[in-house]
Amino acid sequence: MNRRWLLAEFPRGMLCAENFRWSESEVLAPTDGQVLVRNTYLSLDPTNRIWASGAQSYLPAMQLGEVMRGVTLGEVVASRDARVQAGACVTGLLGWQDYAVVRASAVQVLQCDPRRPITDYLGVMGSTGLTAYFGLLDVGIPRSGETVVVSAAAGAVGSLVGQIARIHGCRTVGLVGNASKARWITEDLGFDSAIDYRAENVQEAIARECPSGVDIYFDNVGGRILDAAMGQLNPRGRIVLCGLISQYNSSSPVQELRNLERFLVHRGRMQAFIVLDYLSRANEAYTQIADWLERGLLQYRVDIVRGLEHAPAALGKLFDGSNVGKLLVQVQGEAQ
Amino acid sequence: MNRRWLLAEFPRGMLCAENFRWSESEVLAPTDGQVLVRNTYLSLDPTNRIWASGAQSYLPAMQLGEVMRGVTLGEVVASRDARVQAGACVTGLLGWQDYAVVRASAVQVLQCDPRRPITDYLGVMGSTGLTAYFGLLDVGIPRSGETVVVSAAAGAVGSLVGQIARIHGCRTVGLVGNASKARWITEDLGFDSAIDYRAENVQEAIARECPSGVDIYFDNVGGRILDAAMGQLNPRGRIVLCGLISQYNSSSPVQELRNLERFLVHRGRMQAFIVLDYLSRANEAYTQIADWLERGLLQYRVDIVRGLEHAPAALGKLFDGSNVGKLLVQVQGEAQ
Repeated sequence: MNRRWLLAEFPRGMLCAENFRWSESEVLAPTDGQVLVRNTYLSLDPTNRIWASGAQSYLPAMQLGEVMRGVTLGEVVASRDARVQAGACVTGLLGWQDYAVVRASAVQVLQCDPRRPITDYLGVMGSTGLTAYFGLLDVGIPRSGETVVVSAAAGAVGSLVGQIARIHGCRTVGLVGNASKARWITEDLGFDSAIDYRAENVQEAIARECPSGVDIYFDNVGGRILDAAMGQLNPRGRIVLCGLISQYNSSSPVQELRNLERFLVHRGRMQAFIVLDYLSRANEAYTQIADWLERGLLQYRVDIVRGLEHAPAALGKLFDGSNVGKLLVQVQGEAQ
Repeated sequence: MNRRWLLAEFPRGMLCAENFRWSESEVLAPTDGQVLVRNTYLSLDPTNRIWASGAQSYLPAMQLGEVMRGVTLGEVVASRDARVQAGACVTGLLGWQDYAVVRASAVQVLQCDPRRPITDYLGVMGSTGLTAYFGLLDVGIPRSGETVVVSAAAGAVGSLVGQIARIHGCRTVGLVGNASKARWITEDLGFDSAIDYRAENVQEAIARECPSGVDIYFDNVGGRILDAAMGQLNPRGRIVLCGLISQYNSSSPVQELRNLERFLVHRGRMQAFIVLDYLSRANEAYTQIADWLERGLLQYRVDIVRGLEHAPAALGKLFDGSNVGKLLVQVQGEAQ
């Protein structure tokens, strides 16, 4: 049987379990040019909320009744395409389900390093790593000595961004939602400073922790933190727009900016990006990230929820502040 | 005598004549390395409002009691520097006054084409032209066939931006504040379409007039027009942030954006710039603009207010919608 989560309704306001419908169906057999993949891990990412909204974005709009879209890691069970062998480890947009039948070109075959946990290929050695790497280096363009501020700094992407900025000689300041996250990013990850945005005035805290101003603000959240960071932006400062977590669950999000005039007179640049645009350069990033990992320069956490049945509830962890590090669902977790 | 407008108080809210104080004083003699310039024309620009606010920006903060900062065109009356001859035509930040004594390096000597009106060198062949040229071409990077939307399209910069975009093969849509401006930009300047932002729903109008979406929004105003343009922005769309006229006279400006998520998923780029950064490349622009002028491809209007005494009131025309084209003060206008 193939267990699946279907998109039952487009969430309006806060995402909830009722937006999805559990379904079980036969496992299909692949036809010519197709592969059958058994999903082992499902990546949960804030952008899933955008997909679920049914909006046309950088991917086609999702339709109601479709299997919920998601990036997975899996094993090829059967292949009808010579380019992909049964037993191969693959990733792709294979959805919230046990099994997927897709064209062979829709999966990417991984050359997994057996010394690394397999889950790395959905995290630090997957699109999470690419997002942090290219977002910071290619969009933000940090220079040694600059100050980099990161929001959702204990999240999968933010925690890597701060460390890559540190490796590049930047002062790194992370915004987090509680004291234990603050300790993790400063004591374990090497951020120079952490700000608990729930505990103090964010603009004052950024001003205090960034005495030379903000050269790059890597934004995962939007909202008042975006405005506060803009208020401390240096001349030729860059805002890397990676995500807007604080906005996704609002039915009518309004971003208020009190500091746009500062952005203007300081010749600011705010640029959004999508990691899919960098897939052709993925090996450049993976080679560098693997090197940093071997040298002990990058730390990360993985938060694994066991069992596909918990995927809707687990996704909520990205929006309620309870997530630390990379959030994954082990698809057949409870059965194992 | 040197007649001068001093900055008497930092405007809070709408700029008004009381923010300035009239003063008359002796004309000073230049010392070694200095020049004495008689100002003939004063350029009035929205950025004057930023300067008057006393904020630190891309120039040092203005102090109360200083001569109001402004770009002028003038004639060198006396020179104590071998690089600048008496009689030379110069521009510089020489202020709201009849005469300025400054270091010779603070003025730029113009090689004026006698076939051109002298006022061109504060407009289409001055910083206004540079702003339109580099803002659109260097920051916006238009490609033939793209759609370019411009706000304050009957203003000095906006009217040039639309024409340069048209020359580059773009569909051009201008936002203006009344029907006569709409006729001017479409009938005389060759914009494909004009939208009167006071007469209709701006977002609906942009959607209607930009059936292929917005590739570049050249913003002079901020506020709800910025948000509306963002709401129609195409994938990889660019917002060139040149000015925020609608915000400058607010004592606590708040820019509301309802369409930032679209900007995110469409990988938008919003970039501010300052024309001063392009002075080293000015000749490249002037050569091209002069060529377009000779070939009749660029039209413009100049709005000349006669008499330095009217400068504070004239500046208000930039913010109340009554200005068309380049706004200048003829400094000794009424005496001539």
